[in-house]
Amino acid sequence: MVKLVTLEDIDAAAGRIAADIVRTPLLAAGWGDPERPLWLKPENLQPIGAFKVRGAFNALGRLDADIRAAGVVAYSSGNHAQAVAYAAAVFGIAAHIVMPEETPTVKVQATRDHGAQVVLCGAGQREAVAAELVERTGAVLVPPFDHPDVIAGQGTIGLEIAQDLPEVATVLIPISGGGLASGVGTAIRALCPQAKIFGVEPELAADTAASLAAGHLVDWPVAQRNRTIADGLRATPSRLTFAHLQRVLDGVITVSEDEIRSAVRQLARGSHLVAEPSGAVALAGYLTAETPPGPTVAIVSGGNIALPLLAEILSESQ
Amino acid sequence: MVKLVTLEDIDAAAGRIAADIVRTPLLAAGWGDPERPLWLKPENLQPIGAFKVRGAFNALGRLDADIRAAGVVAYSSGNHAQAVAYAAAVFGIAAHIVMPEETPTVKVQATRDHGAQVVLCGAGQREAVAAELVERTGAVLVPPFDHPDVIAGQGTIGLEIAQDLPEVATVLIPISGGGLASGVGTAIRALCPQAKIFGVEPELAADTAASLAAGHLVDWPVAQRNRTIADGLRATPSRLTFAHLQRVLDGVITVSEDEIRSAVRQLARGSHLVAEPSGAVALAGYLTAETPPGPTVAIVSGGNIALPLLAEILSESQ
Repeated sequence: MVKLVTLEDIDAAAGRIAADIVRTPLLAAGWGDPERPLWLKPENLQPIGAFKVRGAFNALGRLDADIRAAGVVAYSSGNHAQAVAYAAAVFGIAAHIVMPEETPTVKVQATRDHGAQVVLCGAGQREAVAAELVERTGAVLVPPFDHPDVIAGQGTIGLEIAQDLPEVATVLIPISGGGLASGVGTAIRALCPQAKIFGVEPELAADTAASLAAGHLVDWPVAQRNRTIADGLRATPSRLTFAHLQRVLDGVITVSEDEIRSAVRQLARGSHLVAEPSGAVALAGYLTAETPPGPTVAIVSGGNIALPLLAEILSESQ
Repeated sequence: MVKLVTLEDIDAAAGRIAADIVRTPLLAAGWGDPERPLWLKPENLQPIGAFKVRGAFNALGRLDADIRAAGVVAYSSGNHAQAVAYAAAVFGIAAHIVMPEETPTVKVQATRDHGAQVVLCGAGQREAVAAELVERTGAVLVPPFDHPDVIAGQGTIGLEIAQDLPEVATVLIPISGGGLASGVGTAIRALCPQAKIFGVEPELAADTAASLAAGHLVDWPVAQRNRTIADGLRATPSRLTFAHLQRVLDGVITVSEDEIRSAVRQLARGSHLVAEPSGAVALAGYLTAETPPGPTVAIVSGGNIALPLLAEILSESQ
């Protein structure tokens, strides 16, 4: 029996991280289906361009100061790497980030620019290399989603939605490892019991939909999940996040690659937001599925996309 | 002697428009010159994608209800048209928007989508056609910048900057007709007397820099001003706004077309914001000029850019 994150944990996280994150506004889109008025939660406006800073600041803030002083370790080639590196720099502690050798140079450099030590490793060795770093340096591992403090940090988005739009009818949340949906779902379930909560996944990485249908974690090979352009949504839930998702989600919507690209275009055109494909998936769910009537929130989870890819997507036929 | 807008006018405007606009966050860029930490004020996130809604809601809100009921008139092919149409729809009154015949269909349609009546007119006839509409319908003209209520509404951005970053050292504001800079400058001058306030203009439409240097309004032919890609910055100050600008500005920075395009790219890449060229001009000033040390705010004034042009700019060499 896993212990679930509570509203109290999320409330405490909100106080802990308030000074270091952006209290993002809820933006009325002004377009979309009038029966389902659309609001966007633009987490692409956070420092490092993604919601991940919320969990990182909460996890680091929860550590005893003398333990935190030994530094932190994370393994990620994506937004979690940047978030932990950034939060560690704010706390003035060392960060060791383990990244696969094939990580694009620009992402390695961005992580180093936050003052982090980057340790490159071979495919499939990230966990082992991270564990060795923890052993050798005494630093604390900050996992990307499989930790209650990370989940509680991400859940602060749910608190803000409930404050700004208490009458919300539907909340759409991208799902990868499930930390974001676990935290946000827990807050919304507690504060807005009338709301329906949907995860949204690429069809090409729809392992959570399959797992929820099966009632247990279903393994999708990583090579299969890696096909989606939504490179932030290729992880798969842990036992901890899956237990939350089973409890808080009303369903999972899956979207095609074209639908994701179209949502990136619509966010740029209609709301002047740059979203990475993973960050546009919740909107793609809104545009694609027949979600319930009433005020609807789509979380725009991140904006880290290379300009050439963004230009390519924006150039595609509307 | 013109009567200048006061801090009290701007305070009153803030209360009047609060329910209808986005209280935009001040975003720490995290990039730029460490000696001049950069903050962005993302007014591209407002409804209709530009700061113009602030002035429009204040102007409409100041009208007596029975006068307002007769509707409003505006002439504009740009963001002011959308802003007045949008605000009129929220107030439930008629809006007549006079647009030049050559206005792109997509902008005409966007204005109609807000429920406005669009009246197309020949070149140089906008004022006359608007005046005829006022005469015939009894509706009230809402000018794009030459009105104290419009200036006070735009000035609410300055209040928010002063609340969020009272220690601001430099504020960079795009200049066209000067309503935005008049209002923001008035608020910042009153609340943050230590701050330097700079207007920023395209070199190709640098009439305000020329006018301030001359000490009186200098006329640049419209054909000359129309050369800049920053299509929102082709207007020229009125007597009213020029009197404000003379009083509140510490100087005007001019930027090249390439510098504007580069700033559009940097906003997309570094801060995940879609800015129209006019909306990126203040940042271009920051990136180009040696502004004073200390915390610096650049106003991102709008985001209405066609996707093909945005894709083109994003594709250019970095």
